Amino acid sequence: MSTIHEITLKVKEDSFLMAALENETRNKALRAIIETLRTHSEEIFAANAEDLKNGEKAGLPQPIMKRLKFDQSKLDDVCAGMEGLQTLPDPLFRTLLSRQLDEGLILKQVTCPIGVIGVIFESRPDALVQIAALCLKSGNCAILKGGSEAAHTNRILFDLIYQAGVSAQIPAGFLTLIENRTDIDELLKCDEAIDLLIPRGSNAFVQYIMNNSKIPVMGHADGVCHIYVDRDADLEKALPIVLDAKTQYVAACNTVETLLVHRDAAEAFLPRLSQACQKDGIKLLGCPRSMAYIQGEPCTETDFRMEYLDYILTVKIVDDMEEAIAHINRYGSHHTDAIITQCDEAAQRFMLLVDSAGVYQNCSTRFADGFRYGFGAEVGISTGKLHARGPVGLSGLVTYKYKLFGHGQIVSDYAEGRKSFHFKDL
Amino acid sequence: MSTIHEITLKVKEDSFLMAALENETRNKALRAIIETLRTHSEEIFAANAEDLKNGEKAGLPQPIMKRLKFDQSKLDDVCAGMEGLQTLPDPLFRTLLSRQLDEGLILKQVTCPIGVIGVIFESRPDALVQIAALCLKSGNCAILKGGSEAAHTNRILFDLIYQAGVSAQIPAGFLTLIENRTDIDELLKCDEAIDLLIPRGSNAFVQYIMNNSKIPVMGHADGVCHIYVDRDADLEKALPIVLDAKTQYVAACNTVETLLVHRDAAEAFLPRLSQACQKDGIKLLGCPRSMAYIQGEPCTETDFRMEYLDYILTVKIVDDMEEAIAHINRYGSHHTDAIITQCDEAAQRFMLLVDSAGVYQNCSTRFADGFRYGFGAEVGISTGKLHARGPVGLSGLVTYKYKLFGHGQIVSDYAEGRKSFHFKDL
Repeated sequence: MSTIHEITLKVKEDSFLMAALENETRNKALRAIIETLRTHSEEIFAANAEDLKNGEKAGLPQPIMKRLKFDQSKLDDVCAGMEGLQTLPDPLFRTLLSRQLDEGLILKQVTCPIGVIGVIFESRPDALVQIAALCLKSGNCAILKGGSEAAHTNRILFDLIYQAGVSAQIPAGFLTLIENRTDIDELLKCDEAIDLLIPRGSNAFVQYIMNNSKIPVMGHADGVCHIYVDRDADLEKALPIVLDAKTQYVAACNTVETLLVHRDAAEAFLPRLSQACQKDGIKLLGCPRSMAYIQGEPCTETDFRMEYLDYILTVKIVDDMEEAIAHINRYGSHHTDAIITQCDEAAQRFMLLVDSAGVYQNCSTRFADGFRYGFGAEVGISTGKLHARGPVGLSGLVTYKYKLFGHGQIVSDYAEGRKSFHFKDL
Repeated sequence: MSTIHEITLKVKEDSFLMAALENETRNKALRAIIETLRTHSEEIFAANAEDLKNGEKAGLPQPIMKRLKFDQSKLDDVCAGMEGLQTLPDPLFRTLLSRQLDEGLILKQVTCPIGVIGVIFESRPDALVQIAALCLKSGNCAILKGGSEAAHTNRILFDLIYQAGVSAQIPAGFLTLIENRTDIDELLKCDEAIDLLIPRGSNAFVQYIMNNSKIPVMGHADGVCHIYVDRDADLEKALPIVLDAKTQYVAACNTVETLLVHRDAAEAFLPRLSQACQKDGIKLLGCPRSMAYIQGEPCTETDFRMEYLDYILTVKIVDDMEEAIAHINRYGSHHTDAIITQCDEAAQRFMLLVDSAGVYQNCSTRFADGFRYGFGAEVGISTGKLHARGPVGLSGLVTYKYKLFGHGQIVSDYAEGRKSFHFKDL
């Protein structure tokens, strides 16, 4: 049996071939995958029943059991996603720049796949299908490690996708499944072969990956998102937005954790918020000034950095928008932050100065999601500032190379003045 | 006196303000910098004379002394570079995507600065001016550490640029000079404040930076570039290209280190190459088969990974283009690799399959350079595949954020089917 190191080197070799596959070949493979998943749906559901049974035995919490479930509706969702993906324009071979440097010397900047991407994801088996499909469409090889709770479902989904891909002339290295948790540590050492790691999961897990590998990591550890209710906020809008951002799916990274309220809006807004939160079971932690208006407990500075992923919301009154911005840039995680205001100038300034992947006016932070941005799907959300930021879809899975077409040109002619550059964008 | 850590935190705060500066403000500062450098040219040259005197005393090698020199011609060059830079379109505030997600819910993907960039560069004082100017134009704060040989020249250049920038209403954190080598280790720990490191210099130094910081690093350690002379090469073109790529500036990262020759071209090409190399003082290291055609010494596998930065060239005969591609992907550094061929189909395949930042047909690898690509200048050349690849100019110094403009939209309406997305690119 091959070691993880050997496997990744083999995948690396195939990744070069992936870069030359036509869009139609990749789309054909996507269609073959849809067909095989539909044909073998009963076997997939049976494998999933096994995982669910084991999960129940192990006493997994309900939210995880829910994510683990892969039924007809989940199958329809991932197939619809892949249908959409194969109609999307090819992310590869796009010319970003076409420039004549001199007569007969043409520079082109053209998109190409990143290469080999390692994705470590949580208990949702539908994530396996989505990630495999996004990587295939973008010409990347994917090495996947899913949650062990979903082992049976992941195994059959992988087998079906792999077979369909290979039958459709995709190189065998396009998809690899890793099943042992100990293999992750091996994977982290394969910086020769793996171009990018995308870990999804708990803060501690993502930090672990970042601290233990030389491979570039795309993703986010924290999701400490803010909503700032401005002096000029429409409070009728503000309240449902805050409640949605907190409770629509409390365990998501894009839920709001801290609410900042302009002092002039505090008296009108906070008592209403407090009442609504009591009704919805949201516990409030307030700064000293805000405690005059809300039912809750006093917060500490530590709370400003907390990603609760729970029905808890920190509340702070600020003197002006600048204080709100400074707070967000200092304590936030540069994920997604919103301003509620009717003043477009204030919103514009907030959006310029807040250093986050998503900056919103008058809507819920929960919109930070690849599907909701119209990307079809996402491999994850990036809070890093390099390469890709925010929800990462196809465009975040490609890079580019510079192609230079000449007719014998040499640099010494230009360095020594016999020729000179004549730049012209084509 | 502040610690490096305190300094970088202060710079970070100013970096948020930099993101809101208008293009005209940044251009005005560039013009002020040009003016002050011209006005104080005598003082700059005097400081440089000091550095040159010390360099001579210390017995610095001639190539370094040459790079250290900052005279009227270097001043004219950097001022011309900045003149060009201030006429270039603003890299910030560019809308990359504008999409209606639903009625009254508009998503915009807009370019913005990366933030705080640490650049550690070699003995050329003109690099300080170029890097400061590129970072200013792209709205980034730069923390610079130059070579100690250039300490006097760097100090006066920094003082002049800093004063001109601040007088032109640029936040004081836009430019910081670090002068002690020991401060570099402090800098590497400031991952809270610094968004990106760009080390320029020796392979060992760049590796040291990469291994000792959590901050993302852009740059290249190795420059092992190849030229492949195809069966269908025009040998009249091939010879001057190889000689230019090896000797035009032998210490550059984009010089050729390994020459791959198709077996059908070996007999016609290699004896001519060997003769020319003997004339130019280039030592050849050959594979067993090639030794029949060249004057040189046998090479080992180690030589295939060597960046000589010297008048040495490794020569290997390959059976076909696929072998050449596999060799380049295996032993190369993914910097810049060229094919010499009259067959455009072969070139196209070579350019698809070679996994490098630059893939060239029928021209010298020495063209891999920001100025020669028409970028005005470069902060460095990246062999990483994420964010920016190849020569990095303004466009590699920006990232983007997603701005979402709503009117009170909440996610639960979409999740629970009361509303649905209507994606439309604007």
